Amino acid sequence: MSDETYTMKEAMLYSQRIAQLSKALWKAVEKDWQQWIKPYDLNINEHHILWISYHLKGASISDVARFGVMHVSTAFNFSKKLEERGLLKFSKRDDDKRNTYVELTEKGTELILLMYDHYYDTHHSILEGSLALKELYGRFPEFLDVMAVIRNIYGEDFIEIFERSFKNFKESLVEEADTVSVKR
Amino acid sequence: MSDETYTMKEAMLYSQRIAQLSKALWKAVEKDWQQWIKPYDLNINEHHILWISYHLKGASISDVARFGVMHVSTAFNFSKKLEERGLLKFSKRDDDKRNTYVELTEKGTELILLMYDHYYDTHHSILEGSLALKELYGRFPEFLDVMAVIRNIYGEDFIEIFERSFKNFKESLVEEADTVSVKR
Repeated sequence: MSDETYTMKEAMLYSQRIAQLSKALWKAVEKDWQQWIKPYDLNINEHHILWISYHLKGASISDVARFGVMHVSTAFNFSKKLEERGLLKFSKRDDDKRNTYVELTEKGTELILLMYDHYYDTHHSILEGSLALKELYGRFPEFLDVMAVIRNIYGEDFIEIFERSFKNFKESLVEEADTVSVKR
Repeated sequence: MSDETYTMKEAMLYSQRIAQLSKALWKAVEKDWQQWIKPYDLNINEHHILWISYHLKGASISDVARFGVMHVSTAFNFSKKLEERGLLKFSKRDDDKRNTYVELTEKGTELILLMYDHYYDTHHSILEGSLALKELYGRFPEFLDVMAVIRNIYGEDFIEIFERSFKNFKESLVEEADTVSVKR
């Protein structure tokens, strides 16, 4: 077997490994996610759209689709349903007339915050499964190799949106903490 | 905000990160997988059942379900369909009368091997996305933190089956190489 053939087989082996790992990881995440959102009559795509709109402080439908890894039509149709339920509103931006934007209504924001308050009402196997690593390393794992692969597949701006949403997320947690302190 | 509350919020942030990462990774894997198997009129579950049966050299339906992360009924129903197509056969084992086992027929084995021969007919974004890491580190990434989380969620025997299937996979590639050398 030539070196090239060997390398191609090794690459195939690697990519089959990732396929198995990724399926197992996603199925665990999916189950956790479904259990968490079940009481709120949302499916994963709907919750994901609310999540993205909240953490990006409004987003275009194409950003939602891209960052939520769903078809644009899926993002649009579920956004419509969320609008009908009064959780989301559509808008145009003056500086970008071509794209449709979505943002949470007050009711949508309240729902997202309520869901965070009840985050620990359900079991999160991913979290449970990561605690031993946290104890060992003093912090949660960062999955840097997964991040690198995703960066290469989805592009730099996917990661940029990813980091921005978590930066906002983190800040909103800190703000909430400050609010609590002031109230005290 | 108490330390405990902070830690719980940090944990929530972490688990939401993993959810996003894992969805993006799985969607890329799923697309690659679907494109690869499309010409053979199989869905991912069906191919996964053939894959597991081949690499474990026969498996019980419950092993297929567990390792393939699907419901036992899904594993059983798709196995039945594969049996009808002459790709899989059911059997009982003398040392384990309670479980139903599946193994590939000759036709099933030929199909699996044919599919490997045509692996590179389609695009594998996961592979493409990992090449830069391979160049940097001299080997493909191992996703050890993902493996650790999966081990904690699915248990040690899941990982044991995982490693056994890839050991068999690797050996079959080496055997094939030897066969080629002898033929030469």
